[in-house]
Amino acid sequence: MAGNSIGKIFTLTSFGESHGTAIGGVIDGCPAGLEIDFEFIRSEMQRRRPGFSDLSSPRKEEDEVEFLSGIFEGKTTGTPIGFIIKNKDQQSKDYDQIKDRYRPSHADFTYDQKYGIRDYRGGGRSSARETACRVVAGAIAKMILKHQGIEIIGFVSEIGGIGIDQQIDSLNIKNIESSPVRCPDKVIEKQMINLIEQTKAAGDTLGGVVTCIIKNTPAGLGEPVFDKLEAELAKAIMSINAVKGFEIGSGFQAARMKGSEHNDIFESDGSRISTLTNHSGGVQGGISNGMDIVFKAAFKPVATLMRDQKTVDSEGNTTILAGKGRHDVCVVPRAVPIVEAMAAIVLADFLLRNRSARISGQ
Amino acid sequence: MAGNSIGKIFTLTSFGESHGTAIGGVIDGCPAGLEIDFEFIRSEMQRRRPGFSDLSSPRKEEDEVEFLSGIFEGKTTGTPIGFIIKNKDQQSKDYDQIKDRYRPSHADFTYDQKYGIRDYRGGGRSSARETACRVVAGAIAKMILKHQGIEIIGFVSEIGGIGIDQQIDSLNIKNIESSPVRCPDKVIEKQMINLIEQTKAAGDTLGGVVTCIIKNTPAGLGEPVFDKLEAELAKAIMSINAVKGFEIGSGFQAARMKGSEHNDIFESDGSRISTLTNHSGGVQGGISNGMDIVFKAAFKPVATLMRDQKTVDSEGNTTILAGKGRHDVCVVPRAVPIVEAMAAIVLADFLLRNRSARISGQ
Amino acid sequence: MAGNSIGKIFTLTSFGESHGTAIGGVIDGCPAGLEIDFEFIRSEMQRRRPGFSDLSSPRKEEDEVEFLSGIFEGKTTGTPIGFIIKNKDQQSKDYDQIKDRYRPSHADFTYDQKYGIRDYRGGGRSSARETACRVVAGAIAKMILKHQGIEIIGFVSEIGGIGIDQQIDSLNIKNIESSPVRCPDKVIEKQMINLIEQTKAAGDTLGGVVTCIIKNTPAGLGEPVFDKLEAELAKAIMSINAVKGFEIGSGFQAARMKGSEHNDIFESDGSRISTLTNHSGGVQGGISNGMDIVFKAAFKPVATLMRDQKTVDSEGNTTILAGKGRHDVCVVPRAVPIVEAMAAIVLADFLLRNRSARISGQ
Amino acid sequence: MAGNSIGKIFTLTSFGESHGTAIGGVIDGCPAGLEIDFEFIRSEMQRRRPGFSDLSSPRKEEDEVEFLSGIFEGKTTGTPIGFIIKNKDQQSKDYDQIKDRYRPSHADFTYDQKYGIRDYRGGGRSSARETACRVVAGAIAKMILKHQGIEIIGFVSEIGGIGIDQQIDSLNIKNIESSPVRCPDKVIEKQMINLIEQTKAAGDTLGGVVTCIIKNTPAGLGEPVFDKLEAELAKAIMSINAVKGFEIGSGFQAARMKGSEHNDIFESDGSRISTLTNHSGGVQGGISNGMDIVFKAAFKPVATLMRDQKTVDSEGNTTILAGKGRHDVCVVPRAVPIVEAMAAIVLADFLLRNRSARISGQ
Repeated sequence: MAGNSIGKIFTLTSFGESHGTAIGGVIDGCPAGLEIDFEFIRSEMQRRRPGFSDLSSPRKEEDEVEFLSGIFEGKTTGTPIGFIIKNKDQQSKDYDQIKDRYRPSHADFTYDQKYGIRDYRGGGRSSARETACRVVAGAIAKMILKHQGIEIIGFVSEIGGIGIDQQIDSLNIKNIESSPVRCPDKVIEKQMINLIEQTKAAGDTLGGVVTCIIKNTPAGLGEPVFDKLEAELAKAIMSINAVKGFEIGSGFQAARMKGSEHNDIFESDGSRISTLTNHSGGVQGGISNGMDIVFKAAFKPVATLMRDQKTVDSEGNTTILAGKGRHDVCVVPRAVPIVEAMAAIVLADFLLRNRSARISGQ
Repeated sequence: MAGNSIGKIFTLTSFGESHGTAIGGVIDGCPAGLEIDFEFIRSEMQRRRPGFSDLSSPRKEEDEVEFLSGIFEGKTTGTPIGFIIKNKDQQSKDYDQIKDRYRPSHADFTYDQKYGIRDYRGGGRSSARETACRVVAGAIAKMILKHQGIEIIGFVSEIGGIGIDQQIDSLNIKNIESSPVRCPDKVIEKQMINLIEQTKAAGDTLGGVVTCIIKNTPAGLGEPVFDKLEAELAKAIMSINAVKGFEIGSGFQAARMKGSEHNDIFESDGSRISTLTNHSGGVQGGISNGMDIVFKAAFKPVATLMRDQKTVDSEGNTTILAGKGRHDVCVVPRAVPIVEAMAAIVLADFLLRNRSARISGQ
Repeated sequence: MAGNSIGKIFTLTSFGESHGTAIGGVIDGCPAGLEIDFEFIRSEMQRRRPGFSDLSSPRKEEDEVEFLSGIFEGKTTGTPIGFIIKNKDQQSKDYDQIKDRYRPSHADFTYDQKYGIRDYRGGGRSSARETACRVVAGAIAKMILKHQGIEIIGFVSEIGGIGIDQQIDSLNIKNIESSPVRCPDKVIEKQMINLIEQTKAAGDTLGGVVTCIIKNTPAGLGEPVFDKLEAELAKAIMSINAVKGFEIGSGFQAARMKGSEHNDIFESDGSRISTLTNHSGGVQGGISNGMDIVFKAAFKPVATLMRDQKTVDSEGNTTILAGKGRHDVCVVPRAVPIVEAMAAIVLADFLLRNRSARISGQ
Repeated sequence: MAGNSIGKIFTLTSFGESHGTAIGGVIDGCPAGLEIDFEFIRSEMQRRRPGFSDLSSPRKEEDEVEFLSGIFEGKTTGTPIGFIIKNKDQQSKDYDQIKDRYRPSHADFTYDQKYGIRDYRGGGRSSARETACRVVAGAIAKMILKHQGIEIIGFVSEIGGIGIDQQIDSLNIKNIESSPVRCPDKVIEKQMINLIEQTKAAGDTLGGVVTCIIKNTPAGLGEPVFDKLEAELAKAIMSINAVKGFEIGSGFQAARMKGSEHNDIFESDGSRISTLTNHSGGVQGGISNGMDIVFKAAFKPVATLMRDQKTVDSEGNTTILAGKGRHDVCVVPRAVPIVEAMAAIVLADFLLRNRSARISGQ
């Protein structure tokens, strides 16, 4: 399969450019009989929307999802769910400056090198706009997970070097969505906001880290040896624009620990086996162990600056790319629902794949 | 497809348990007419072998690869390459202690939860022994890459918190294979060796970081939006036993940088467009840009200790797992050829996938 | 992958029910730089349309294809091509009679059994309406084939037992599209039309056979041992509604021939090796040999009758299904472009897959 | 994936050439906990063996299957099942005559055209020897099916134009395995044997038809719209060497019937809905309806003759291919277990895929 599909049983195939007619996708393999909560889908789309707080870009995308198939009388029918989201913002004149100039750390140059042709309007296919389709599929995946009691919680744990020190268990998860930076720690949140405002004034941009916790996952999900749970998660998360790093559980910190510190000791309360610590991040040998799945994604700073930058054009001539007037300083808070969506797609797929693990069924 | 295959065109399907008759695999999609360098395969297998230095476990695996098909008169024929590696070490009595006990931070518990049955001998399928098959396929992938001049260089950049500070460009790559810890920095190497010896004396274990550089990659490899180059690399690397983190280019450090620092400015020498810095790690928008691809993998410390550990058995009773007599303290140096192999498989697959990028062919 | 995608490199994922908002699809893996002939797509859609002759149902579907992505300034960009076709005919009141009754030899019963829920309006997903999406993808596949000079010609060779006796080579291909039954033999055409009219008067329906010829295929297409050219063709053709049989070359007739009659003897004109006969149908060992690929598809008679039929409802009660007022007697002529489309999708996919056959490229 | 894998959940990846070291395969996705009946596997291999009757070639292949992984203490573990079958017959001197000559209606020419290189010994990968691996996987698939009470029965219904007239229901299935031509009709069997002996005397060969019945399939198997049950079956069957045609249910006969004759009328006995006739062959809309699945496969006559034939060499020169001394006249009886194996693989895969049809599980 070409690169615009993800999943083995629960699959999303997406399409669409930033400034074409519409973006959209096909969700295939969603089991029949799932009740669709359209209000929930709208709220997930709203969470991803630019301008969810005063700190991000004011562009209004309404991002209304039109479902075209696969749902009948409010339930999935087992047939593919086609959907589109129309693009409202199609003034292509805005993009003449980048037609022949390669924006630094964007995909203009690489798309040209690969395909020999490029829809330059607003980044085309490489624009983060395509992530809206991931959120649609993620919302439906979350409904599948909810059937099993599985819940996914993402938040911003670091922006521009300012990060949360607290243990995950002591965080107040309820603060996340009310925070303009989706940070559950009120003290850190303020520091992040200050940094964003300073950076905005300087015409510069910031990156950060999203942490994601998946609760109530049953033991047994993941398909070794290549489709390990953390491997498919890593792929899904690293496929999001601007992600440069992925960690599960102890992550890079694991490299600095002794085995005696890192090993998660098993214990049993008589009915359920669990581990005292969770350095494994809920995954051992590529299969979930029933503990919380915990992972992190590092986002680079936004590549579009509000300052001029030197670059080259498609013929190799040195030129100047003018800074953009108004733009996001930091998209990490908006990335939270996208990270959650990708995690949901991966988990829903593994839930269904796991139905074939045993001859006796589940 | 079930989870034991990787790749879309150049694919490896692997099989085998640690203490079964043999492990092996099928490489399908290898183009015809590739001359096979059997000596190179042997040397790659040798690089992965336990006991390549005095620092690691003395167990001798000869790991002789028997090719059963797909090669005729020294060349690939385009048909699948089947191969096996016989298991020499099959004394199953060694493994009675772990038959019903769950080793901490191993996959015993999760395999039982998933499948309801488990080949407990030596870890069975979850043993790192299966990575030998990855090295076989990786060696053949490297031969495909060599046709394009692409080269893959891995080394150990950190063990137990002791890491290289030097810039990648200033490292002496020629030191790697002569180093017992595969570290190109002679000063750091000594510190690593000391730490390993101390840790061994304490019956404990260590993790570390492997850095990998892919040189001379043409621009254009990678298949957005889900099969981005860094996404497939992340999956392949995270599917290796004990890996807890993956970074491309600036990785988690990106989250702490400003956009103006992080952006890689384009320049041209008249014939070729390149970037002044390489925070992108050779990939922009999921597609290679022609710069070196640079990534890191974090390995947790070895879970098998030479000390006793508390654990539970399959019925949830608390029990003690006895420490093993002689075992690896740190497998990170041995992981280098495995990391390289997975990178080679991913790159070879993308090279072939890219042949369909344009209607006019390549 | 779930069942709504076809192809490995050139892929179509389709969605949509007969009476939902729209049907559509995503074509992924189409190489960049292909000039899109929109007029050709319209003409292919027109060929499939009901009512192309007086002999078929007068329902007007305009079937206007809206392309949403993947095409820029008239050319493919290498990104996925999303498209939709709106459904015009959505009066669901027409379909109350089949809501709880199982139409004989339709898919009402089996969809209910599989999914436990069914969009009963007009057959929902099982309606032949979804084949419109196949024609869209097929039209684009034909443009890829045209680059190589490959041409696909389908026609009706049999209706209700009345069939062409002539050798394929002696048929006048130019007669096909001007014939209301897409039969190139003028004498047989008249007999077919007579039979259709008699059958219509009797309220009954007819099946038939479509023959398809693929000209100028290069030798070398097909991927043994499972993805043989004839195997993928068979799958693609058998996935069309109402197809009950598939033959390549000599087909079932082969079973009645001696080896000495059936073998296709090679000859050479000095520059090109060909065969004297073509019982192989252009395929040997699953790979094209450069001769015309010739195959046949058998269609069962239309299951919807203009007569009452006995059946059961979803609770197993015997009931009567009223005959429909006006309906197609024979859809085989309309199936010709669908058969061609599926053949084109398979061939385009094999052309791209074949780019990886040799290490030296193409 | 390259072309040597089949299946989506239950998958077989096969490898091996006729005269290499060994053939073999990997069965991935077989659920854990399946008890393996090794005696049954041996008997299935025996059924496929050349020389099962005096009528076929006397070459003795013992075809001993060595399982290398995935089975522990007699049960599947959910990990991939690797197996090999060593090649005993490796005298390559026999094959010098075909090194540079293209045998008519074999794959010598097409493999050369595709790959530019070919293992000419005994047909290499294109030899029917690879079907032994299909029988291994098929035997395991049959064990999965047996769990659901599903049974597969294949027999020879036609050889060289001599065919069974009886209705399927009136055939005595118990006669099949005791018949040297696997024909359940004793009168027809004798005629077939006579024809084979006459043809042998003439140095010529025969083709035929295998009919296959799958009993007790639950309703609901098959994944429209592209992976319809009959579509995947057709692909699997057409991928067998020498198959030129496939029919489900009424097959090509459907094209000659009226709708009123062909429609299968539903009836109910109060607890189960079935159909009065079974022209559909157990499949409606691509999904099983609970009736017997009935299909046919047409085999061309053996291409290797015991007579001289004209041909060309790889440089296009006309030459003579000498007739072989002793060879099979008709392989159709031996093809029966191969046809059954492919049907079993397809059905087992669909059983597992169907576990994801509904949100509530099965």
